[in-house]
Parts: sequence; C-alpha cells; structure tokens
Amino acid sequence: MLPFARVSIIGMGLIGSSLARAIKACMPEVRLCVHDASAEVRARVSELGLADEVCDLPGTAVIDAELVVLCVPVGAMAAVAAEIAPDLAEGAVVSDVGSVKASVLAALEAALPVHVRVVPGHPVAGTERSGPDAGFATLFEGRWCILTPREADGPGVAQLAAFWERLGARVEVMDAQHHDRVLAVTSHLPHLIAYSIVGTASDLETVTRSEVIKYSAGGFRDFTRIAASDPVMWRDVFLNNREAVLETLGRFTEDLVALQRAIRWGDGETLEALFTRTRAIRRGIIDEGQDTAAEDFGRPHGGPGSAS
Amino acid sequence: MLPFARVSIIGMGLIGSSLARAIKACMPEVRLCVHDASAEVRARVSELGLADEVCDLPGTAVIDAELVVLCVPVGAMAAVAAEIAPDLAEGAVVSDVGSVKASVLAALEAALPVHVRVVPGHPVAGTERSGPDAGFATLFEGRWCILTPREADGPGVAQLAAFWERLGARVEVMDAQHHDRVLAVTSHLPHLIAYSIVGTASDLETVTRSEVIKYSAGGFRDFTRIAASDPVMWRDVFLNNREAVLETLGRFTEDLVALQRAIRWGDGETLEALFTRTRAIRRGIIDEGQDTAAEDFGRPHGGPGSAS
Repeated sequence: MLPFARVSIIGMGLIGSSLARAIKACMPEVRLCVHDASAEVRARVSELGLADEVCDLPGTAVIDAELVVLCVPVGAMAAVAAEIAPDLAEGAVVSDVGSVKASVLAALEAALPVHVRVVPGHPVAGTERSGPDAGFATLFEGRWCILTPREADGPGVAQLAAFWERLGARVEVMDAQHHDRVLAVTSHLPHLIAYSIVGTASDLETVTRSEVIKYSAGGFRDFTRIAASDPVMWRDVFLNNREAVLETLGRFTEDLVALQRAIRWGDGETLEALFTRTRAIRRGIIDEGQDTAAEDFGRPHGGPGSAS
Repeated sequence: MLPFARVSIIGMGLIGSSLARAIKACMPEVRLCVHDASAEVRARVSELGLADEVCDLPGTAVIDAELVVLCVPVGAMAAVAAEIAPDLAEGAVVSDVGSVKASVLAALEAALPVHVRVVPGHPVAGTERSGPDAGFATLFEGRWCILTPREADGPGVAQLAAFWERLGARVEVMDAQHHDRVLAVTSHLPHLIAYSIVGTASDLETVTRSEVIKYSAGGFRDFTRIAASDPVMWRDVFLNNREAVLETLGRFTEDLVALQRAIRWGDGETLEALFTRTRAIRRGIIDEGQDTAAEDFGRPHGGPGSAS
C-alpha cells in the first residue's frame, strides 16, 4: 500500500532529483510530476527520464498531487508556496527538504490554504555536488529524515514518515526550533567554518594557492569538500537560521580563543586533554553507523575497534 | 641500485610502521632495524614481522644504518636524537617524518654529531588512526614528501629524495620555515579547528551529544574524523609551530568575524560571493589528483566536470 499515489516535486537539483530517483526505485507505481524553474534543468530531467511528467509551471505539477515536496533553497520556499497555493488539492500534504525548519514552517503556513497539511521535512543527507545529474537513488538510505510539523501527531505526519521509510530513511519527529539548534551545530557551523577557512587559505600572501592545493592532504582537503557545497542553498541557510548559528558560532569562537591562548602560553596539557576527549565523539559516530565513507586519507576504514 | 641498503626506523606508530611496510614492499633487499620506546609496540611489530630486527634500544637499531628515520612526535625528536647520537655511523643520513620542520632541523643539528647528514622530511600523508596496526604500505603513494635540509643540494638530499620516490612519493625540497607556514594553513589550522568544533559540540546544553552523533552526516562528521587524530602528535605540532599557527589563526578569526557580521546583518551577497569563490579551490584539488577518497557523503566522486 503506497503512502502517496501521486507525488509532485518542485525543484530538481541534487536533492529533488535524488528523491525522484529514489521514488522510481522504491515505489515505481507512484505517478510523479515535477517542475524546476530552470528550462535547462527541465530539459535535462526529461532527457534523464526522472519523472512521469515534467511540467513547465509549478501549478500544473501539483494539481492532483497527494504529496508535494518543495526541493528549493530555503529562501525560495515562500514564493514557491504562494505560486502553487491555488492549485493544491484538498488535503494534500505539502513538505520540503530544507536545512532550516522554523522559518520554512512559518512561511508554508502563511502561504498555503488551510485545507492542505503542512509537514516540513529535512533529510540529513547530501553531497557537495549540485544539479539533476548529481542526484542518486540511494542518497537517503540509512540517513535520518527529520519531520517538524506543528503537531507531532497531526494529519499527514504518519503518512509522510511511512513515505520516507520506504525510501530507506530513518524518521524522527522534532520541534522545528529544536531542529534548527541541532543542525546549527552538526551542519551549519561546520559549513560556515569550512567556507571561512578555505577563503582564508586562498587569500594569503606568504603561501601560494598552488601550495595550498598541493599539500591539502594534510587535513585541508576535507574542508574544501564541504566548502564546495551549493552557494545559494547555504546563503539561505545562514540567513534563515541566524540566531542559532550566531549562538553556536559564539561558543565556538570562545573555545577557539581558549585554544589560541593555550598555544601562545605553551600549555600542552590543555591541548592534549581536548585532543584526547574529541576522539570519543568519533567513536560514537562509527558505532551509530553514521560514517559510511569507504575511504579516507586514501585507505579503507577499520571497524570501531581499530581506531586505537 | 638501492638509495640506502641499511635503514633504521625509530618509532613504529602509524607512520613508522607504514614506512616499514612500504620499504619491505618496494625495496625488499633493504635490511631494516627498528625500535619503539614501548615494549608492547615492539612485541606487536615482531609479531607482524614488519622488520628484520626489532631492537630494545634505539642505539642498537641505528648502529650501522645508512639512513635513520625518526618517526616520533615532534616534541620527542631532541631526546631521541641525543640518545642515538653516539651510535650513528659516519656519514649516516638522519631524517624524520615530523609535521613541523624548523624546530626539528634545529633540534637534530644541535643533538647530532657533525659527521652525520641531517635531512629533515615530512611525508604529507596520514589517517586519524594510530599505532603499528594502523599502518599500510601504500600510505605514501602519490603523496608529497617535503625535505627541508639546511642546503637544498647538501649531502644526502638527492639520496633521500630517491628513497622516497621508490616508495611512490613525490618529493619537494623546501626551506624549513616556509614548510611550517604552508603546513600551518593546509594542516595545522584545519586540525586545530576540527578539534575545537568537536569540543564545542560535545559541551552544549541545548543539544545532546547523542543528537550531535545522530545528525553528524550534515557536515560535522568530516570534522570528527580529523579530530580523532593522535593527541600527543598534535599537541607537539602546535607547541612547535606556534608562530605560524597563531598568525594563520589570526587571519582565520578575522575572516570568520566578517562572516559573522554578514549573517547578523543579513548580507546575503557577501555570503554568496565567498561560497562561490571557495568552489574554485576544490576544483584545483581534484585536478591536482590530491583527492583520492572514493566516497564522500556516501557516494562515489564524479570527475572535475561533475561538480556543477
């Protein structure tokens, strides 16, 4: 039994096109209508055969959908919601995949008619690549998808949870504000820092950019991967989760200044104590199965017991 | 023709044991004597059969070596050098694999007799794992090894370059001070930041540690890998490359504060401009072949053209 028989996706970038591929792979009976604002992307999506119908207008794509998933940057949600509002079917579930949830929940509730069910969502998955060619069907497998409806047991929530589980995801229901605080730590701050350090490194006078590239295997390389993520998507994340990001950033800066002081004063004990403590978190991630990278620094991972 | 027929390694952790394995794989005719300060590590090295001889004393291991490679934390170099000094053969090349070079060059020159040739080295390769079981023979393949002798064409330099090339590395000769400035950017600062953010994340009141672990796929996970690196090794790096690290850290903090201000004032243009610019560095790293990770965020990499 399908959670939704007719699904519509608005926005066919990395996440939207992965979602389309995953639906076709896991629920081939679903009728899938999609739209993207870019004519070029629509043409490519047609070529790739990612949907049953590729519509020129968002309203056409959603007209009889039971589930509509908005896969556009967070800053574009309000406008897209307003555009599809008149065409949404009675009782349709409207969700999204944005990395910020409180502002999206508010924007969707404000723009959409009361006869639809707003259930915002955030699959915690992605790569640094963008566009419909970058998507793949297994992106959500084993990943968490966080739903942040106004009420945890509201209409459409169980159905949407079942939908994501069919795609291989693990589902959690959470308050939107809490989601934004958690993701500020696990995703937004890491991205901000990666962007910042890669910017710093490319602007130095004493070290050339080609030297930075050449010797990046020392650790810098991992930051460049994160800092290659979609610029518009991330601009919108920071503009829409400002408070939680600034709060977390303040904490980080405080801790970094303490480390700076320890280095300046030659306080090896403080450094070693922190460096020892941070290994524990890594162990937790390996145990939780949240690390799927097959390689890292050029060699296969060992199991949890091997990082001695 | 072997660059060195008799090689000695002092310190059999990740790098030392990888070096031993690489020598056995690429130059099986070399006679290899090794030592580690830990009796437990020596026993394990014997069990694994990583060397022709595992010596209880460092002096015994170096006694007739043509090349001695010190694979101990940077802060231990001076003491180890002083200990082996009386036993070194006339004309022996003494090198190391430390991540900081100016302090090591000075320490080795001060501790060693004038009849040996001091040629410090730094293979830019590693993983977050430690100990003799973590090593592997291909660690240096395609990686840069930077040599920082007092004189670029001094005795032993060409021979040591040939040795590393036989192990698959690419060799560069560089001034020790310049090495330390370059690595402060490409390696030391990234590690410091990763340690710091992982520390910050595990100390929050509003977000639990298990939430941090659960939703780490959003970007945080990559930092935890770096922040799981060897604590003593990294403590010594920061204590011994203080000036360059503090200088680079100052730059980074300045840039991060500018980003913080852009977020606070809702300046999307500044954010997007930086986020767009940082993609170029990533492209350079892929083109240079410095990214060998087969997976990342759970999916295979595309070529340079795919990160559109």
